[in-house]
Amino acid sequence: MQAVTRVGALRERTAITDRMKKAVSSPWLVPFDGSFSIAGYPTRPPDGAANSKELKKSLADLTDQLADLQRILYASSTWSMLLIFQAMDAAGKDSTIRSVMNGVDPAGCHVYSFQQPSHNELAHDFLWRTAVKLPARGRIGIFNRSYYEEVLVVRVHPQLLDAQGLPGTIDRENIWQERYESIAAHEQHLARSGTVILKFWLNVSREEQKSRFLSRLNEPQKHWKFSRKDVDERRHWDDYMNAYQQALAATSRPWAPWYAIPADDKAYMRVCVADIIVATLRSLGLGYPRIGPDEHAQFETMRKILEND
Amino acid sequence: MQAVTRVGALRERTAITDRMKKAVSSPWLVPFDGSFSIAGYPTRPPDGAANSKELKKSLADLTDQLADLQRILYASSTWSMLLIFQAMDAAGKDSTIRSVMNGVDPAGCHVYSFQQPSHNELAHDFLWRTAVKLPARGRIGIFNRSYYEEVLVVRVHPQLLDAQGLPGTIDRENIWQERYESIAAHEQHLARSGTVILKFWLNVSREEQKSRFLSRLNEPQKHWKFSRKDVDERRHWDDYMNAYQQALAATSRPWAPWYAIPADDKAYMRVCVADIIVATLRSLGLGYPRIGPDEHAQFETMRKILEND
Repeated sequence: MQAVTRVGALRERTAITDRMKKAVSSPWLVPFDGSFSIAGYPTRPPDGAANSKELKKSLADLTDQLADLQRILYASSTWSMLLIFQAMDAAGKDSTIRSVMNGVDPAGCHVYSFQQPSHNELAHDFLWRTAVKLPARGRIGIFNRSYYEEVLVVRVHPQLLDAQGLPGTIDRENIWQERYESIAAHEQHLARSGTVILKFWLNVSREEQKSRFLSRLNEPQKHWKFSRKDVDERRHWDDYMNAYQQALAATSRPWAPWYAIPADDKAYMRVCVADIIVATLRSLGLGYPRIGPDEHAQFETMRKILEND
Repeated sequence: MQAVTRVGALRERTAITDRMKKAVSSPWLVPFDGSFSIAGYPTRPPDGAANSKELKKSLADLTDQLADLQRILYASSTWSMLLIFQAMDAAGKDSTIRSVMNGVDPAGCHVYSFQQPSHNELAHDFLWRTAVKLPARGRIGIFNRSYYEEVLVVRVHPQLLDAQGLPGTIDRENIWQERYESIAAHEQHLARSGTVILKFWLNVSREEQKSRFLSRLNEPQKHWKFSRKDVDERRHWDDYMNAYQQALAATSRPWAPWYAIPADDKAYMRVCVADIIVATLRSLGLGYPRIGPDEHAQFETMRKILEND
């Protein structure tokens, strides 16, 4: 079997239309040329980062802005926003989603957590179960884990592939490249349709994960979050890092960027995530829909009808 | 804005895996190199085609085979089959689906007719509403009209694009190429996941359509099928033929072939369609799943338990 063509090179040749939003800049942006290396991305905030009091104030300010921007996104109903969160266990996916989306109207924002796929989900192509949950125009859809699990946990535990009922022999060398290609094409299609895609990898260190697992064991109100399986997965840390590095390198695009957010300090991480979401929404240049002069003239008629009622 | 890269050239470089079924040959197969020209494809059966009695016998034989093959497809549960039917009105989509799938167990075969999209469907990307209905492994899914409407009726009536709420300005030159690319990537992904895709364009002539519309007016039991709108659409015949030619040329692939079936003679058309489906299923080399020696040994135990019950 021939080698599958490398992903990035081919697709970049397609023009970005003005229906595809370009990534806002950030030190945590994963480059689009496939050169991403985890080694270059810290898990701790950089020197000189704001202190925790300042971060708290920043987050409050950003969530206020986000609440306003989401209302305009909803009212204008042209773009949809897809936020993807991927991370090792205990990196803070749930709490980040909770903190950042805190002020947002839940009518316009839906969070979906993707756990192990069901029998019926496995009986479809690997993009099917998330495709069903994609956000409509005007909405924010949040995927807590996503189709990226198919090139992360499934790559680290390739025996999971066998449970997927794929016909033919599985070429374990090419299937990950094929999946990167399927994912990149899917996201390009969504971006052209007006979906603004942001992908966050919460980059936690092995040491920090250990300390968070220990606090789950030590603090009774965190016991429910502890799972033996999570600890067992630590043995595969390096395999996971390799899978993340390859997946992020292969699928970061101007219209579907990955951000590798330092996750050892939760307050700092949340501000980074909120800041990128707010800056991206702001870059859309949205406003409440304006009405034309004809409609405005009708408003006068309506006002008179109501006043004489 | 740059021109969007031509579709075919890029994608053919990707290897066909043995999880992607190659098209069975047929005089009606649309070539994969973009050279398809409607002018070369007749709407009438070729000289020397079987007579109507022979065709009837062939169809009965093929539908018997299809019923058997579908049971094995269902039992083996690795491949799924997606059949797409597109055509001008009165070409015979409904009656072909009815006749060809006549003997197939409806538990394993679902037909979806896609009419005008709903408000919620329009609020998603154009592949969303059909993606939700994709067949699971072991099943046959039939799309009576499909996402191809997005490059057919929408292309002929581009004002329909305006109702889709896309952000940004619509580049009416590139959007069709973009959509061909999205469709081709979607089908490639499905094919890799084990979906066998067959696409039938029922190629009816303008004259034959006229005579079928007249019989809808003349025969009371066909009145319900008559629609003023269908007659109005005849004015756009050449635009439709142009849209079909371009769409079929851009999206016929070894793993997702188009067949342009002569549709002026319904009996001949049905046999062609049934023959291609049967030949494709047969090419999968399916058999009922075999059990291993360990399981077989358990059967003996089970037999004894039952006999002593």
